[in-house]
Amino acid sequence: MSLLVVGSTAFDTIETPHGNAVDCLGGSSTYFSLAARLFTKVRLVSVVGTDFPPQHRQLLESRGVDLAGVETKPGKTFRWHGRYATDMNSRQTLDVQLNTFGDFRPKVPAEYRDTPFVFLANGSPATQASVLDQMPAVRFCVADTMDLWIEHERKGLLALLPRLDGLIVNDSEVKMLTGKGNLIQAGRACLAMGPKLVIVKKGEHGCFVFSNFFHYALPAYPTETVVDPTGAGDSFAGGFMGYLANCDSISLWNMKRAVAYGTVTASLNVEGFGVQRLADATREQVERRYHELQQFVAGG
Amino acid sequence: MSLLVVGSTAFDTIETPHGNAVDCLGGSSTYFSLAARLFTKVRLVSVVGTDFPPQHRQLLESRGVDLAGVETKPGKTFRWHGRYATDMNSRQTLDVQLNTFGDFRPKVPAEYRDTPFVFLANGSPATQASVLDQMPAVRFCVADTMDLWIEHERKGLLALLPRLDGLIVNDSEVKMLTGKGNLIQAGRACLAMGPKLVIVKKGEHGCFVFSNFFHYALPAYPTETVVDPTGAGDSFAGGFMGYLANCDSISLWNMKRAVAYGTVTASLNVEGFGVQRLADATREQVERRYHELQQFVAGG
Repeated sequence: MSLLVVGSTAFDTIETPHGNAVDCLGGSSTYFSLAARLFTKVRLVSVVGTDFPPQHRQLLESRGVDLAGVETKPGKTFRWHGRYATDMNSRQTLDVQLNTFGDFRPKVPAEYRDTPFVFLANGSPATQASVLDQMPAVRFCVADTMDLWIEHERKGLLALLPRLDGLIVNDSEVKMLTGKGNLIQAGRACLAMGPKLVIVKKGEHGCFVFSNFFHYALPAYPTETVVDPTGAGDSFAGGFMGYLANCDSISLWNMKRAVAYGTVTASLNVEGFGVQRLADATREQVERRYHELQQFVAGG
Repeated sequence: MSLLVVGSTAFDTIETPHGNAVDCLGGSSTYFSLAARLFTKVRLVSVVGTDFPPQHRQLLESRGVDLAGVETKPGKTFRWHGRYATDMNSRQTLDVQLNTFGDFRPKVPAEYRDTPFVFLANGSPATQASVLDQMPAVRFCVADTMDLWIEHERKGLLALLPRLDGLIVNDSEVKMLTGKGNLIQAGRACLAMGPKLVIVKKGEHGCFVFSNFFHYALPAYPTETVVDPTGAGDSFAGGFMGYLANCDSISLWNMKRAVAYGTVTASLNVEGFGVQRLADATREQVERRYHELQQFVAGG
């Protein structure tokens, strides 16, 4: 089934201990789309400036991403500049220029409004809610959030949570949101806030999934080469939602497999700067890595 | 089959954000023994001072731990005093009094020398090697180590590693030992130093097992109550070695199950101060938690 994502499109400048990349294609919706397109058709709702070049559009379209929902506004595209620490696990934001993304009011095209699977990439809870308001028939909706909204838009976030099938957050965010220092307690407390599913990303330590019916833990794919961790969370979400949108049913087992596919697409993404590795990825590479991951975690 | 452990016996004073314990029974060999005894008979080689009270001996003996190898020397028992940070993940050593443990020269009793399974708890590589010198017929030997030896006794440690079936270390230690910042690269590099198996403990994030034939990852048991993390690593080692010593063969599957049993005994241990929770644990509790852990990690 079709899958819609709403989020940012950006030019990223990335500094790592091993090399730099200037003004490469980035943004949450881009990483998500290029991961999800490995499994299903993706409809993208985003905004860019007049400086967004045709070759980026061509790249996305050639990978099956539908850009009918990408608005071009006068001005520049969102720009982000970050630097990773030596261990690649922490990063510093050096510059943010919101530009045309600053007053992004997502308009879901009429022909997109019946899309059953929706991912609300990181954005203000009010913006995320405005998307759901335009899509009354959503079957499975997952959202991302961040410390900024947890701290400054808490009321809006708490109103959004019961409308979600799933919330994807990292470990520090779910602890911040719930005020619980223990991750298992935080996961349970977050469930009580409304989403049916809480997926906690732990970076190189994998992820936890909490629901009222099951808990699930999956280690990360054992990556030896981390070139650029930017977009790992959105690539995870893209693999997860893309696989699930392509399933016959949202069963427990399909959900667990989707978590593994998300883990795999994230592991591919970090092997190159920006979205390049994801853009080059094939379904065969994904399947090979999926089976390696299953071997890695197969119990005794 | 029987299992021998060589390591420290101590009085620990432990401060946590949730409470303190003064002079409780501790030491690597004690945590190890009380975890391993849930699966098999344990022979303990250690040293205590004349202040070591009969009730501690009785506790260990009542749990099936053979104390024939515990030497009593004039002077005091090893004492450790530590304080945990708010998140319980890092700790500060406030005081160490080695006392009788300072010149511990383990003497393996004659009737212990044919013990097939051996765990060398944290100690200097020279001391650990001296145990192996006394036990030429060891079938499966695993050792722990720490940053102190990696930094100051590197030569001795490198000479010990090829004599080991397994090395148990935490993630920062294996990175320090190998000079690799990526954990998967560090695990591989450590294998190349000689041990047949490298087990990397990641605390609340579970563990990785590296061998030349398979890699394996297991998340930690989802513990909601952490009272005192002291001895978690030795409890893990005790559950791992205890289960394996009780198996018919050291197969891949038994090894993976042993890792899960180690994970479970460590999760029990952290629920109480000192060794109390382990001393109270039953095999039934271990089995229940083992099956919960299997459910937690069961894939799609």
